[in-house]
Amino acid sequence: MSAIADRPEASIEPMMLYMGRRAREAARELALASSDAKNAGLIAMAARIEADAGKVLEANAQDLDAARAKGRDAAFLDRLALNGARVAAMAKGLRDIAELADPVGQVIARWTRPNGLEISRVRVPIGVIGIIYESRPNVTADAAGLCLKSGNAAILRSGSESFLTSLVIANGLSEAVVDAGLPEAAIQLVPTVDRSAVGFMLGGLDGAIDVIVPRGGKDLVARVQAEARLPVFAHLEGVCHVYVHDKADLAMAKKIVLNSKMRRTGICGAAETLLVDRKAAPTHLAPLVEMLIEAGCEVRGDPETQRADSRVRAATEDDWPKEYLDAIIAVKVVDGIDEAIAHIARFGSQHTDAIVTDDKEAAEQFLARVDSAIVLHNASTQFADGGEFGMGAEIGIATGRFHARGPVGVEQLTIYKYAVRGSGQTRP
Amino acid sequence: MSAIADRPEASIEPMMLYMGRRAREAARELALASSDAKNAGLIAMAARIEADAGKVLEANAQDLDAARAKGRDAAFLDRLALNGARVAAMAKGLRDIAELADPVGQVIARWTRPNGLEISRVRVPIGVIGIIYESRPNVTADAAGLCLKSGNAAILRSGSESFLTSLVIANGLSEAVVDAGLPEAAIQLVPTVDRSAVGFMLGGLDGAIDVIVPRGGKDLVARVQAEARLPVFAHLEGVCHVYVHDKADLAMAKKIVLNSKMRRTGICGAAETLLVDRKAAPTHLAPLVEMLIEAGCEVRGDPETQRADSRVRAATEDDWPKEYLDAIIAVKVVDGIDEAIAHIARFGSQHTDAIVTDDKEAAEQFLARVDSAIVLHNASTQFADGGEFGMGAEIGIATGRFHARGPVGVEQLTIYKYAVRGSGQTRP
Repeated sequence: MSAIADRPEASIEPMMLYMGRRAREAARELALASSDAKNAGLIAMAARIEADAGKVLEANAQDLDAARAKGRDAAFLDRLALNGARVAAMAKGLRDIAELADPVGQVIARWTRPNGLEISRVRVPIGVIGIIYESRPNVTADAAGLCLKSGNAAILRSGSESFLTSLVIANGLSEAVVDAGLPEAAIQLVPTVDRSAVGFMLGGLDGAIDVIVPRGGKDLVARVQAEARLPVFAHLEGVCHVYVHDKADLAMAKKIVLNSKMRRTGICGAAETLLVDRKAAPTHLAPLVEMLIEAGCEVRGDPETQRADSRVRAATEDDWPKEYLDAIIAVKVVDGIDEAIAHIARFGSQHTDAIVTDDKEAAEQFLARVDSAIVLHNASTQFADGGEFGMGAEIGIATGRFHARGPVGVEQLTIYKYAVRGSGQTRP
Repeated sequence: MSAIADRPEASIEPMMLYMGRRAREAARELALASSDAKNAGLIAMAARIEADAGKVLEANAQDLDAARAKGRDAAFLDRLALNGARVAAMAKGLRDIAELADPVGQVIARWTRPNGLEISRVRVPIGVIGIIYESRPNVTADAAGLCLKSGNAAILRSGSESFLTSLVIANGLSEAVVDAGLPEAAIQLVPTVDRSAVGFMLGGLDGAIDVIVPRGGKDLVARVQAEARLPVFAHLEGVCHVYVHDKADLAMAKKIVLNSKMRRTGICGAAETLLVDRKAAPTHLAPLVEMLIEAGCEVRGDPETQRADSRVRAATEDDWPKEYLDAIIAVKVVDGIDEAIAHIARFGSQHTDAIVTDDKEAAEQFLARVDSAIVLHNASTQFADGGEFGMGAEIGIATGRFHARGPVGVEQLTIYKYAVRGSGQTRP
């Protein structure tokens, strides 16, 4: 990688294509690497991050200075900033990934044909994953670790503001995997902040990249989704709903609504809209709204919600499809489960939606009919997370309709091939 | 559909976008349709094709006349031509699809978290499938049937030469599904031969199409792969290899090579290259070449193969990556399994490759290391087929590295969502 960084005369495109070819070659080796070798690589990566902590923090201080000079706000600086604890968390994350089961080589299905052919569907890595991220330098380690575990080569494109930090981390990681006998190009960071590199990645580098994962704000995800000429694992937004059904227990509804909205308001699985069934409204609406307001949440409601509590301001049509990512919620009274499902279909983002009810039949209807990556019955929308699903770390949450939906963990970073074992069979 | 066809003043793009929206609406209904309803639809479609046989053959006669007037060759006319038997085969194909298990609603995985959450990964349809095909009108029925069974709406784009035939078939099919209580827009044929329609489909119709399936020649597939801004199920070509290993039984090798190459030479799973291990060459090479030549196959070989049989003409570098789709084979002597695997990695198309050997260890190495959608041990490459795999009909074979690899049947036309059942859990 450094050889390329030292050739500033080279134009970006040939460099990117060269990275793509190296990644593809590395992917061929990684696909055949043993679980032990990959786990040794992950542990070496963790140790290297710890050993590099001083250098990483130094680079991060430079990145932070530059970001402050550009007038970046506190939230941005917090995403960018590392400290000892955050570096340690990256290392721990890599060790946790080493503990996960290796998906590669798993036999997903196996059957025997009448002619005696034994057919196995076996998990193999996807190949080369392109990760385009913004200010969080920890994505460098998290994404590289998940890719390595699943036998994929990673091409990492760091945001310009975290570039120095990411570069120190990535250089250490790719050297660490070499020590573990794995190819250096298993982990490559695009060694330039030139934005044209993103465009080349979205073009697939001549078929060298198999899938793109954007990690960052809505603008980045929207650009990637609009311009990528290859598959993307992403969600543009999480407009998540909690529907409090007619047969909802009020205490449970309060607990789930509060947690779904207020546990953390800035994550994609946070609820943005509360739908209350008209039959439940007389008993449930006022207490739910009061609870939210007392918890510090702004409530924007339809006329009925406003009548239930004078502190509710009027919701406009803009509120229903809105992802606040803040302590704000839109509240609407709906006429039964059909209207609730129709509202979610119209305004939701197919991310995560929940129903609260003691009526098993209504719950099953909601689970079947709401077309979102994750649908929950009597549980908080904030469970939308690979770790909470027991899948270990995730590279993101996908709301597309192809390959993987919901949390994308190491298993979702694989595809399969067929191994067919015969004894001389020919096709008639 | 006819309403649109009657509005020639409308430009293509709004019409295509309208079809996309109708397909998406139909997909929402289809996703919730019962297996019984879908099977009733398939049986109604079969009956309708039989009832329409006269009209279909009449339209086909017109298409054939036009194709002949354009000077199309015999192979083209054969792909385009229908007769009573071919119409009956379409109807039978639809009834066979009705017999398949419904993939939608299948629980792929289910587990319980320590906090009591029950997580299920449930199959759901992908949504809307765009099928772009050329001269074979039977694709209309086959693709529509596979999409309906898997709960997907189909947007069919017929080749201009088979347009009239496809239109009569498709109109009948979409009316038939209405009789079975399913949405008419479950099956839509693009009602124009204007080629710009293909470009709009490759753009995804504003997100209305989830995946494109090209069915036709290499030019079509290459264009779709190059221009599509959404996922594609396809294989550009099948440069399939048979590697006769050192420990191959000669009789079995002869049988498998002959079948792989000569059973049908025009299909994607036909072998195009024979690799013979140097250690097996003294005993196996001449008999294999002789057998192929006697079966009417032209053999193009490296110098060693030419020495083994004087009828072998010299292979050039162009032969190794060549998909002949004809009674021609390239033959090369390789130094062991490593060179065989390297040759396949360099010149193959990641479609289907086979090893013939009695050495179990070599077989397992080949199956693990050859990175193709289908790898076989001691079996003909011509088994590369959804029907032969026991998956029922297939919409095609995919050699990409995303979502599905190998035969794409009804199961591969689905994705999943998570249904999470709780009892009031909130995230700490």
